[in-house]
Amino acid sequence: MIKIAIVGYGNLGRGVERALKQNPDMELVGVYTRRKPETVQTDGATVFGLDDLAEQKGKIDVCILCGGSATDLPVQTPAITKLFNTIDSFDTHAKIPEHFATVDQAAKESQTVSIISTGWDPGLFSLNRLYAQSILPEGDTYTFWGKGVSQGHSDALRRIDGVAAAIQYTIPKNEVIEKLKAGKKMNLTTRDKHLRECFVVLAEGADEQAIKEEIVTMPNYFAEYDTIVHFISAEELERDHSAMPHGGTVLRTGTTHENTKQVIEYKLELESNPEFTASVLVAYARACARLADEKQFGAFTVLDIAPKYLSPIADATLRKELL
Amino acid sequence: MIKIAIVGYGNLGRGVERALKQNPDMELVGVYTRRKPETVQTDGATVFGLDDLAEQKGKIDVCILCGGSATDLPVQTPAITKLFNTIDSFDTHAKIPEHFATVDQAAKESQTVSIISTGWDPGLFSLNRLYAQSILPEGDTYTFWGKGVSQGHSDALRRIDGVAAAIQYTIPKNEVIEKLKAGKKMNLTTRDKHLRECFVVLAEGADEQAIKEEIVTMPNYFAEYDTIVHFISAEELERDHSAMPHGGTVLRTGTTHENTKQVIEYKLELESNPEFTASVLVAYARACARLADEKQFGAFTVLDIAPKYLSPIADATLRKELL
Repeated sequence: MIKIAIVGYGNLGRGVERALKQNPDMELVGVYTRRKPETVQTDGATVFGLDDLAEQKGKIDVCILCGGSATDLPVQTPAITKLFNTIDSFDTHAKIPEHFATVDQAAKESQTVSIISTGWDPGLFSLNRLYAQSILPEGDTYTFWGKGVSQGHSDALRRIDGVAAAIQYTIPKNEVIEKLKAGKKMNLTTRDKHLRECFVVLAEGADEQAIKEEIVTMPNYFAEYDTIVHFISAEELERDHSAMPHGGTVLRTGTTHENTKQVIEYKLELESNPEFTASVLVAYARACARLADEKQFGAFTVLDIAPKYLSPIADATLRKELL
Repeated sequence: MIKIAIVGYGNLGRGVERALKQNPDMELVGVYTRRKPETVQTDGATVFGLDDLAEQKGKIDVCILCGGSATDLPVQTPAITKLFNTIDSFDTHAKIPEHFATVDQAAKESQTVSIISTGWDPGLFSLNRLYAQSILPEGDTYTFWGKGVSQGHSDALRRIDGVAAAIQYTIPKNEVIEKLKAGKKMNLTTRDKHLRECFVVLAEGADEQAIKEEIVTMPNYFAEYDTIVHFISAEELERDHSAMPHGGTVLRTGTTHENTKQVIEYKLELESNPEFTASVLVAYARACARLADEKQFGAFTVLDIAPKYLSPIADATLRKELL
């Protein structure tokens, strides 16, 4: 049994707790939190204070770090990697090289393993970009995101006077994807590839037309996009828009000899972004435990890890059943 | 420069020659064939007799074996692996474990590396089955093939009296894929997932209605499928059906907590099956050369190889650009 600790218990931590129940070769030893343990309501896991984690050294195989990328993980991942093998989902793209270097040093000095920036983007999408560009060196890679909630754009809606509550979905333009797959060459920005759909609850007495105008003309957020605005009730928002769906597509269009077109497409449609991300973290936690068994100490990303390390199934069985 | 030899020069070998031109870190030293070298017309590569291959020991980094799975590769891969690092596209699914064992022994005894069963199925589809089932342990995996030519079904058409020439495409039923993605549970056989489209050139004086009836009622091949039959001219067959398109989809539908649906889809749309397969072989040839540099001798499959080994780009650059 691989002994797992969850560090941080928001949506992602809860997702990890749930994913572990689907993986019988793993055992959750506990949730570690900075909050008062008695205030954290889990799906059944025992909760401990984060200060109690260090004394578990030697009793936990992998700590799955479920904090945020802005302030938690840059500090927590190197610190905890000095005592335990770790996985994180650090997703501040521009800072990944720096994060990797810091964690790699901590892991090598402490003879531990850390797999950073795991999830789906960065993560599975990164993998697919790498496979696709290596196989089709002459071509272009496009990433589309959604349909899914953009927290930044939802916040922008909520800051408008007269908006009581709101949510914004980023939606990929399927007609653009189809044109690319048909071989059309296009220089696309994020805004060319996506449209924005807003569901807005008005405050009492607010002017629907004025607010719609304010949204669709908001620079940086909506003015440059095709934006759809729906006004709904607070009850509808709660009933229809509480889930956290997301997904996206990595598309590689390339040519082999002359103009022979080849298309590789990888697509995710997720009803719960945090639960799916958690499932990726848990599969890579298995890889982390194995790399540690093999004494391959240091920091890794998904690009460095052979696919078989993610599976609980024996290599010979995988060859027989999956090849 | 990675020095490559092509062994066997049919559609796949020609595809490898073309793919190598897209990979500036590789150099083709020659094509080795059982035919008389002067009878083989390449895109420019020098042709040698297969008997001359052995004396190149030490001068070739990787031999890419482009023979057939039925009789060539079971003999050639272990034999050539005794002298060189090799890659093959052995695709007789049921015999892969046996082939792996034979090649693994040859490679370990000879301190070489061999990557077997590379291509897209087995190959990229196998990879995607493994990733998807490891991430979503509660779910189902479905493979759809096509649109692409089935050689066996095309041959069955050609054996009918009154058929002068013919080709058959296997076509995945997109409505079934959509139902699966929407969460419908179905026990599907290959025939439930595909339809068959036939393009037939009649011999002089042949009875169109009788031949159509014979096709759609042919047991094992067409009777159990939705089959579409078109009668065309020899010119149309030559003009419109000489390409070798193929492709397919690996779909994993799973649930995380309770009924939260998650869908992972991997799809290939290939205008040339042999050229795409060749491009996969070439990317894995790079991995093969690197594993040999690291003295990781033995047989491997795509499941055993970290994604980064496929790329000519430095690890730090990959982390910066793809994560």
